Amino acid sequence: MAQSLSSDRRFHSKDLEAFVARALTALGLPASDAEQVARLMILADLRGADGHGIFRLPQYVRRIRAGGLNVGPNIRVVQETEAMALVDGDDGMGHLVMRFAVQVAMDKAKHAGVSWVGVRQSNHAGPAALYAMMPLERDMIGIYIAVGSANHLPPWGGIDLLLSTNPIAFAIPALEEPPIILDMATTVAAYGKVKTKAQRGEQLPEGWMIDAFGRPLTDPKRAEEGFLLPIGGYKGYGLALIFGLLAGTLNGAAFGRDVIDFNKDDKTPTNTGQVIVALNIAQFSSVETFKRNVDEVIRDMRNSRRMPGVERIRVPGEQSHATWLERSATGVPMNDTLFRDLQRLASDLGVEGLPTSD
Amino acid sequence: MAQSLSSDRRFHSKDLEAFVARALTALGLPASDAEQVARLMILADLRGADGHGIFRLPQYVRRIRAGGLNVGPNIRVVQETEAMALVDGDDGMGHLVMRFAVQVAMDKAKHAGVSWVGVRQSNHAGPAALYAMMPLERDMIGIYIAVGSANHLPPWGGIDLLLSTNPIAFAIPALEEPPIILDMATTVAAYGKVKTKAQRGEQLPEGWMIDAFGRPLTDPKRAEEGFLLPIGGYKGYGLALIFGLLAGTLNGAAFGRDVIDFNKDDKTPTNTGQVIVALNIAQFSSVETFKRNVDEVIRDMRNSRRMPGVERIRVPGEQSHATWLERSATGVPMNDTLFRDLQRLASDLGVEGLPTSD
Repeated sequence: MAQSLSSDRRFHSKDLEAFVARALTALGLPASDAEQVARLMILADLRGADGHGIFRLPQYVRRIRAGGLNVGPNIRVVQETEAMALVDGDDGMGHLVMRFAVQVAMDKAKHAGVSWVGVRQSNHAGPAALYAMMPLERDMIGIYIAVGSANHLPPWGGIDLLLSTNPIAFAIPALEEPPIILDMATTVAAYGKVKTKAQRGEQLPEGWMIDAFGRPLTDPKRAEEGFLLPIGGYKGYGLALIFGLLAGTLNGAAFGRDVIDFNKDDKTPTNTGQVIVALNIAQFSSVETFKRNVDEVIRDMRNSRRMPGVERIRVPGEQSHATWLERSATGVPMNDTLFRDLQRLASDLGVEGLPTSD
Repeated sequence: MAQSLSSDRRFHSKDLEAFVARALTALGLPASDAEQVARLMILADLRGADGHGIFRLPQYVRRIRAGGLNVGPNIRVVQETEAMALVDGDDGMGHLVMRFAVQVAMDKAKHAGVSWVGVRQSNHAGPAALYAMMPLERDMIGIYIAVGSANHLPPWGGIDLLLSTNPIAFAIPALEEPPIILDMATTVAAYGKVKTKAQRGEQLPEGWMIDAFGRPLTDPKRAEEGFLLPIGGYKGYGLALIFGLLAGTLNGAAFGRDVIDFNKDDKTPTNTGQVIVALNIAQFSSVETFKRNVDEVIRDMRNSRRMPGVERIRVPGEQSHATWLERSATGVPMNDTLFRDLQRLASDLGVEGLPTSD
C-alpha cells in the first residue's frame, strides 16, 4: 500500500487538504466544515486507504450538486443520557456528523467510563478507522460500526443483496508501540478490492466471491453476477446483520432493503447509520499500566515463532501506521487518471487546481 | 444439533438441573449458587450447546477439588461509574460471576442507556449466548465478550499459541420472531468440534486447521500439531486479539501468554476475563417499533431468493431456538459414555445419580 508506481505524482498532504477544502467551500460548505472534511479525507489517503480519501471527492461533489447531501446541516443530539446519545446528522457529510458524534462520545465517556453514540441521517464518512482512532487522543478506546453505503452481500444461502459489508473498527492505545487499529469489512474482500482487480485485469482469488449457484467467481468482470463472501461463512453474515441492526435499525437509520446504493443514486438521502463507542481507560485501571500491557501483548505476538516464508508478524494497524509515516514525509501518491479528474473538477468548480509542480 | 442417536437417553431438564445442583452442593457451593449454575449449565444443553453444558460437570468437579475454583467467592464490584463497572469474581464459578455482572449491567443501563461491565478473576462460564441473552428479559440488547479458557490460535503467520478462540455473542430482541442471537468463536471451527470429529473418526474439512508449515491439516488425530484457522484470515486474528484486550487486559484479567489451559491445569486460578454490554432500547426509540423493525429484517432475510440446494435461510439463533423448543418438550439427549461418567461421579460424590428410567 505504501508503494506507488514510479509514474505517480506525489502531493504534500497540506496541498491536498487545501484543494479539497477549496472545492467543498465552492459548493457551499462553511470554511471550517470544509477544512475538517478535507483533513479527514486526506488522513485516509495518508494511512493508505486510497479508496476512501480524495478519490471520493468527485462522487461527493456529484451528490452535493444533486441535492443528496446537505451543505449546511443542523447536526444535533436528539436523545441522550449521561452515557448514550442519538445524533441526527441532518444529511450532512458523514465526516462532520461522525466528528460531532465522537466529541459527544468522548465527553460522556470521561465521567461515565463508557459511552455509546448512535447516528442517523448521516452519510459515507470514509474509513472506519478514522473515527475509532479519535478517542485515542484522550486515552480512550474507540469502537466504530457503520452500515455500508451499498448492499453487496446476500444472507447466507440467499441471492438477494440485502446486506452491506458493514464494517467495524477498534482502536486501542499502546505506550511505546503504535496503537492497535483493526478496521475490517465483514466480507473476505471489500468491494473496492474487486474493482481494483478488474481495473488491473487480474483474476480474483477463490474465496472472495461466489456466483448465484454458489460456485467460486474469479473473473472480476463478472462481479455484478456474484456476491462477496462473508468472513467465516455464516459468521460473517451474522456479524453484518448484527452491525446493521446496531448501527442502522436501533438509530432509526437505513438497513437492509432500505439502504440506498450511493454509487448509483446521487439524489436520495442515504440516512446512513453509524455508532461510536468510547471507553475511558482511566475508569478501569492506570492508563500507563494498561498501555504497557498492550505493548507487551504486541511484542509477544511479533516475537512468536513464524511459519516458513513469513517475514514479520504484524498487529492490526501496523501497516497503515507505516504508510502514514512514509506518506507524511514523502507525500501522497496519485495516479494520472485521478489527477486529471481532479483538475477537471477544479476548473468545473472555478477553483484553483492541484499544484502542477513540486 | 437437535438430532440424537436413537440409543441416546433423554432427560427432563429439571432432572438434569437437580442432579448438577446436588453435585455442586456436595462440593460446598451454597444451595442457591448451585441451583443457579445448574440452571445455566442445563440451559446450554437445552439450546444444543452440548459441549458447554452438563458435559463440563466432571471438569468443574475436578477443578473444585484441586482448589482451582472458589466455592464461596466474594463476587463484588471493585470500580464503577453510573455506566460501567469492574467486577472481581474472586475465582468463583464463571456462571455466578457473569450472572452477577449482567445484573449490574442491566441496572446501570436502565438509566444510562448503555453499560459496560468488565470481569476479572472469573472462570469458564459456558456458552457466550447465555449471558448476551439475559438482558433480553428487560428489553435490552446484550453483547458478551470473553477470553477463551485455552490458547489454540497463533498470531497470523506465527506458530506460538498466544490466542484463544475468544468468542463474542450478541442478542437482539424481536417482536413475533425469536430473538437474533449470534454466538461465535473467532476461529472457523471451535476446538470442541475438532474433538468431536476425532471421536467419530471423521476427517476435518479443509479450512478448519493448518499445520506448522501452513498446510491444511485434515486428520483430527494430528490436531495437537496444528492450529485453528481464524475467520477471514488476519481479520479473525485481529478480532481474537482485540477481544482479548477488551475482556482480558482492560479488566486486569489473563490474556495471551498468561492464559492457563484449563483442560490441562485444574489448580491454577485462571483469572478469566469477560465483558457484558447492555443497551436499553427504550433510550433509543420505542421498544415496540424497534422490535417490529427487527421482525421485518428477519423476514426479509428469510424470504430472500435462495441458492440451489438451500432449503431455508436462517438468522443467527434460529437453530438454537428450535433445539430449545424441542428439548424442552422431549428432553435432553445424552450418550452412554457421558451417562456412565456422570453416574460414577454421583457415586464418587455420594449423591443421588441421574434417574435410570423415565
